Amino acid sequence: MNLLTIDTPALIIEESKMNANIERMRNKAKSLGVTLRPHLKTSKCWEVAKRQLWTAQGPATVSTLKEAEEFATHGVKDIIYAVGIAPQKLFRVAELLRQGVDLKIILDNVQSAQAVSAFCQKQDLPIKVLIEIDCDGHRSGLKPNDTELLAVAKAICSPARLVGVLTHAGGSYDVNTPEALSQRATGERDGICTAAKRLREAGYDIEIVSVGSTPTALSDTDLTGVTELRAGVYVFFDLFQAGVGICNIDDIALSLLVTVIGHQKEKGWVITDGGWMALSRDRGTANQAIDQGYGLVCDVNGKLIEGLFVSSANQEHGIISARSGNNLHLEDFPIGTRLRILPNHACSTGAQHPKYVVVDRSLEVKEIWDRFYGW
Amino acid sequence: MNLLTIDTPALIIEESKMNANIERMRNKAKSLGVTLRPHLKTSKCWEVAKRQLWTAQGPATVSTLKEAEEFATHGVKDIIYAVGIAPQKLFRVAELLRQGVDLKIILDNVQSAQAVSAFCQKQDLPIKVLIEIDCDGHRSGLKPNDTELLAVAKAICSPARLVGVLTHAGGSYDVNTPEALSQRATGERDGICTAAKRLREAGYDIEIVSVGSTPTALSDTDLTGVTELRAGVYVFFDLFQAGVGICNIDDIALSLLVTVIGHQKEKGWVITDGGWMALSRDRGTANQAIDQGYGLVCDVNGKLIEGLFVSSANQEHGIISARSGNNLHLEDFPIGTRLRILPNHACSTGAQHPKYVVVDRSLEVKEIWDRFYGW
Repeated sequence: MNLLTIDTPALIIEESKMNANIERMRNKAKSLGVTLRPHLKTSKCWEVAKRQLWTAQGPATVSTLKEAEEFATHGVKDIIYAVGIAPQKLFRVAELLRQGVDLKIILDNVQSAQAVSAFCQKQDLPIKVLIEIDCDGHRSGLKPNDTELLAVAKAICSPARLVGVLTHAGGSYDVNTPEALSQRATGERDGICTAAKRLREAGYDIEIVSVGSTPTALSDTDLTGVTELRAGVYVFFDLFQAGVGICNIDDIALSLLVTVIGHQKEKGWVITDGGWMALSRDRGTANQAIDQGYGLVCDVNGKLIEGLFVSSANQEHGIISARSGNNLHLEDFPIGTRLRILPNHACSTGAQHPKYVVVDRSLEVKEIWDRFYGW
Repeated sequence: MNLLTIDTPALIIEESKMNANIERMRNKAKSLGVTLRPHLKTSKCWEVAKRQLWTAQGPATVSTLKEAEEFATHGVKDIIYAVGIAPQKLFRVAELLRQGVDLKIILDNVQSAQAVSAFCQKQDLPIKVLIEIDCDGHRSGLKPNDTELLAVAKAICSPARLVGVLTHAGGSYDVNTPEALSQRATGERDGICTAAKRLREAGYDIEIVSVGSTPTALSDTDLTGVTELRAGVYVFFDLFQAGVGICNIDDIALSLLVTVIGHQKEKGWVITDGGWMALSRDRGTANQAIDQGYGLVCDVNGKLIEGLFVSSANQEHGIISARSGNNLHLEDFPIGTRLRILPNHACSTGAQHPKYVVVDRSLEVKEIWDRFYGW
């Protein structure tokens, strides 16, 4: 089996690039003196996850309880579920704890803290809780100096236990210079350390001080006071991360293998079987300096074809055209030609696929890896 | 089990609305005097598909060979695979034919016609072919008057057999008045009838004259000369179709059940566990008269809450805010509140989920239906 014979569309992992990306983040965490807690939401695949993890038991980050449950079946024990807990999900949390998984949850309000505490009392279960901190106003969490911070801590009652604070500099996705990224990383560190300090001064034992986003993790910073770093999309990278400036296009380990199925001569379009169902609807680069459409175009070997992009996509059709002018020679792309599309966003493109096809510096298929989905 | 106890995010079908949508399209096809060939790509679910089909054997339309294979296992025989064939996919087509499935394929160029003919000769297999016609310049197909049309027909050699012409007025998605839709439907009919006439005059036996898109199918038109109508998204409808003007928001049968997990008081945000992983990245309404963000907000009973929308989404977080002003009272949405989000696009939101939860005018769960994915 090779990339000239397998059916398309198919999602391809270039293993050597993935391994290099994993190594880069591991070295970065080491140089920063913090524990790396990889976010496994990008791949939802044990074969990828186990290469990212420091030990087979973790530490790991997940975005759904389904991920926690799946990775727990492979023996991962130390997990943070890094999305604010919805109280009705506590039964699934309890089940994982009873299986011996050291699953930690997060929350950012008194009401959730009370619900968790009441549940723990009723079930006689010591759930570990981190308070979510908002370091840049992009989503959830309490501001580091929020007056409610101590009220939330106080509402986490035994046997529930406050063990740490967690933040995610999602705002770092909006910048694209090393200076701005470094500033965001510093803001992320300062925010979380302020919150940790306030809680410690109030008498709480804050073991975990957790930060993370791929852009801030890879930027120039000093993480004194932080205990661990979370990051996910670095495992594959994508055009969005290249636009942020923390990887090169050549580092992107994920691509969609497609086949040319038609042309529109007047318009200079090459039409493929890789539509948005296979690429996802993610247009994350639309607001970056370079809008990459639905993705950049490589030949079957993964070599970038300059000047082309997927300019439009329907459910099962991708339209490739020249970014400017009429320099697209349709005769170079006869029916049946195989191309590889670099995606805007590895997390959303991955989500469209039940499996990854793994290759390594050649067209030969090394392995097929299953990917799960759902909640 | 009911919508207050099942885990979230969960994709909900309101069965009575779905049935009414199915009935509406069936009556429309009847009044137009054409056969309805439902497109099954929207649901990828046999329980939905069997309700759309006229008989358990078909006719049906699919967008992938995976759909053809899945629905064939349930006994569907008369299928058009309505995406231009990639030659390497012919082995899977052949396998379905050998199983007794009357699978028809489409193409729009001489090179594909030659590849199909060569394959059919080698395999001694009579694959039925339709030529794809481009009625509005939005994607694939030959223009009705294209000089290549007869060359493509000629290149389809026995045992391959030209049986018809097919077009899809995808451009109808860009308009939003009954007059404009009616004009698109007329253009779709005129285009396909012109192509059919030219082929018949050249001596070809054109049995199938196939048109279809949900907006043109439901608009005011006369389909004289057309034999069949294809449409898919009508089964659920969505905010995009409401924006086009061919359904009411109250007709939308698909919604995402979510739970409130937090608030940002200063910003007036309600944060839920329904992010883009569950809603999809589809922002199809962004270019319509009303941009619906990532979706409109209903209470758990499905009653629209005026003035709210999902203004932003991360992977597992949805942010609900007031469309204008500060009229969002966070105290109305305590932690744990369940809401239902109407999606922009039923096809892409559906694709994010392994199953549908079926309810009917109450919160009780009637059934759980599996949904497949992949290619």
